[in-house]
Amino acid sequence: MKPTIPKGTRDFDSFEVNNRDYLKSLFKIIFERFCFFPIETPSFEKNEIIYSNYGSEGNKLIFKILNSGDKIKSADVDAFNREKYSLFSDSISNKSLRYDLTVPFARYVAQNQNKITFPFKRYQIQKVWRADRPQKGRFQEFFQCDADSIGSMSLWQELELIQLCDQVFTKLEFKNIVLKINHRKVLKQIYNKINPEISFKDFTIILDKIDKVGIDNILDEFKKCGFSSNQKSIVKKVINFNGSNIKKLDNLINYIGNIDEQIEGFDDLKFIFEKIQILKLKSIKLVLDFSLARGLDYYTDSIFEIVSSDNPDFGSIGAGGRYNDLTSVFGLKNISGVGISFGFERIYEIIKNNDKFTQNIRKNPVVLILNYGDEFSIISNNILTKLRENEINSEYFPDKVKIKKQLTYANKKNIRFIIFYGKEEMESSTLILRDMKKNIQKKIEFIKPDNVFIDNLKKYI
Amino acid sequence: MKPTIPKGTRDFDSFEVNNRDYLKSLFKIIFERFCFFPIETPSFEKNEIIYSNYGSEGNKLIFKILNSGDKIKSADVDAFNREKYSLFSDSISNKSLRYDLTVPFARYVAQNQNKITFPFKRYQIQKVWRADRPQKGRFQEFFQCDADSIGSMSLWQELELIQLCDQVFTKLEFKNIVLKINHRKVLKQIYNKINPEISFKDFTIILDKIDKVGIDNILDEFKKCGFSSNQKSIVKKVINFNGSNIKKLDNLINYIGNIDEQIEGFDDLKFIFEKIQILKLKSIKLVLDFSLARGLDYYTDSIFEIVSSDNPDFGSIGAGGRYNDLTSVFGLKNISGVGISFGFERIYEIIKNNDKFTQNIRKNPVVLILNYGDEFSIISNNILTKLRENEINSEYFPDKVKIKKQLTYANKKNIRFIIFYGKEEMESSTLILRDMKKNIQKKIEFIKPDNVFIDNLKKYI
Repeated sequence: MKPTIPKGTRDFDSFEVNNRDYLKSLFKIIFERFCFFPIETPSFEKNEIIYSNYGSEGNKLIFKILNSGDKIKSADVDAFNREKYSLFSDSISNKSLRYDLTVPFARYVAQNQNKITFPFKRYQIQKVWRADRPQKGRFQEFFQCDADSIGSMSLWQELELIQLCDQVFTKLEFKNIVLKINHRKVLKQIYNKINPEISFKDFTIILDKIDKVGIDNILDEFKKCGFSSNQKSIVKKVINFNGSNIKKLDNLINYIGNIDEQIEGFDDLKFIFEKIQILKLKSIKLVLDFSLARGLDYYTDSIFEIVSSDNPDFGSIGAGGRYNDLTSVFGLKNISGVGISFGFERIYEIIKNNDKFTQNIRKNPVVLILNYGDEFSIISNNILTKLRENEINSEYFPDKVKIKKQLTYANKKNIRFIIFYGKEEMESSTLILRDMKKNIQKKIEFIKPDNVFIDNLKKYI
Repeated sequence: MKPTIPKGTRDFDSFEVNNRDYLKSLFKIIFERFCFFPIETPSFEKNEIIYSNYGSEGNKLIFKILNSGDKIKSADVDAFNREKYSLFSDSISNKSLRYDLTVPFARYVAQNQNKITFPFKRYQIQKVWRADRPQKGRFQEFFQCDADSIGSMSLWQELELIQLCDQVFTKLEFKNIVLKINHRKVLKQIYNKINPEISFKDFTIILDKIDKVGIDNILDEFKKCGFSSNQKSIVKKVINFNGSNIKKLDNLINYIGNIDEQIEGFDDLKFIFEKIQILKLKSIKLVLDFSLARGLDYYTDSIFEIVSSDNPDFGSIGAGGRYNDLTSVFGLKNISGVGISFGFERIYEIIKNNDKFTQNIRKNPVVLILNYGDEFSIISNNILTKLRENEINSEYFPDKVKIKKQLTYANKKNIRFIIFYGKEEMESSTLILRDMKKNIQKKIEFIKPDNVFIDNLKKYI
């Protein structure tokens, strides 16, 4: 049988695991610095939970889990024969792997509403699974990395997420990160000004593609949807406003003219820009982008998207926004929240492509004690125990094979320190420590007490 | 819709996540100290891989994943109608959630045999899933925590795992941990001496129950299988050998008499006991137990099981052994390995039941800056930024609500430090830091430069 893994999945060796853990812990530390604390939810959720928040497009990408044991007998074969495949699969599956961390979060908040103190700030770094067509940089199993505040309408939470984002990329030493911001209610005003035949949702779906296809193609698509030249020129004009964020916002207010009851969107953005101007950002640039739409239904207010100008191919490396009604489907109404999701896998790839991991990860040194046979094994293992007690990662080569073979093992595994303890060393009560990196070796005497000996040894490790 | 999670699964709040992470990192550090390094494998594997190493009993407990999209159309309804349910489910599923970490490890080793340097030592701390009937302490989703060495027959690897186990329970400060050891080949000799009608496998399956049902019930069961009084008395005599491990072993050798070609089992155990006697163990006790059988087919030589004498209800809290042929099903023959799997969830429960987590986890202090309204918000947020820059987890209450309400939030969340910065403080260029635990408060002056101010503040946090 050929040993292979399912398409769209990955094995990780030690190097990758360490690097991925490093990135996870960087996120953890920053999230906690901002008083977001972790929760974890099960890998699978009941189907009714998991279906609740995605459109049919999302549902296609969900991995359903087959009911186990005898429950398979309740397969609705009749539905199958009538080509009602959803009905059929629901008859043999009642849970699915989670598709994102937002729905489990909403479920968690609603389920634990009496235990939780609001505003509730949580982060979650866990795997999600999507039955997506695997392609470069897109996997069926990958990490998401979300921070959300729920239970307050305060714009200080938007500001906090923007600062958190700034902190993440400052720590990562990423340059030229742009945090695009827009507001669904402002977008709605623009839509109202255009007053097109298509729905607001369809309008945002088309607009959202601008990064991928460019403005001309967007305008073409709008034309196909029946936009007049005048309507198209409103789109073009609004998108092309330039200057500072506040300038753009003022331009839009002047241009759209009469502001109706939905002024809150403008005020929200103005508040955010004014405060950020004073509080300042270290690494990222906050840019008002009227073409940012965020297709997901649940966003109602501010929306964000993070891009790396140095790595435009990666597209969005994070996104978020405010949702005013995420949990009502689970019976918890009128709770507003705002969240951000970092694209863990893409950020990881960027760091890897820039070869930044080697400098960030402090590799612990490893010591290999060579195996010279049974006669030397007890003293070799006593040294081993002492090294481990001194928090030095160490091992004893398990087999008495040719020293050359043992050195090959050390070399292939990139082991830096080798201890030779054979006949000659035993006779002179010494050992030899070789530093493979510096290519030097030291003879170290066994002297009592042990801690003096080990201190001598540690000097070189 | 009622927000609930599937049976046998768990949500974890921050307290639990932190405690679980603490335990995971303890294992990680010790594994790496012994030069086991991490790998991670996908959550699901192809069905042919995952079916390869379990009996039909195991296969019942596997969570299969439904093929997505149009592939559901290839359901073998005919098989369903003929009540061939395995065939039916295999027609709509080609991958499953992993059931343990051993099969993915074997697959990984075979798949990467040309990249790996043998002996290959890896650890893996990941989730596994079992469609088990959920009950107290048994879950459908849980962590396993495995360390394996593969590619050497050396008994120094058994010794290393025993020392590793000792180190784990030393660190955890667990008392009265027993590492039971036996050897499949010695067990085979005992079986040969008894010479019963039942197969060796059936013999071991019955023997394995001794911890749960006691020796008398075991002997009854053997009787039902046709054991004579004499055969039963051999079982009883062997199990009741006492004294030191070496004494027991000598007793067995004397009793069984003629040792055939399988002497290696005895020699292996003798080697292990002799070395351990010299190298010494700190916390755990190594006990030769001729009733230990380990039902799993793949063990061929030494076998281990860890129990906590103080917590007998938990049963085994770890187990392992040597397997001489784990990877041949994947085309990699004649590779011997030895491994140990720690019962993460049970060990976690024992620590929790003994209330040990509070003392092990250093909780970072948290500072809440109260929200006195817009007038004070910028300075409050400047303080916030400085605290965060100084690695102090801090937050600003997002809403300007009554101070009492903000203090209730702090109290409920167990936030230790509160900063008051309102009108009075602004006028006197100070802030008030209250330590809720010590129930004291300090007035701290804003003085330049900032680092002097922050140092003053940090003195009390």
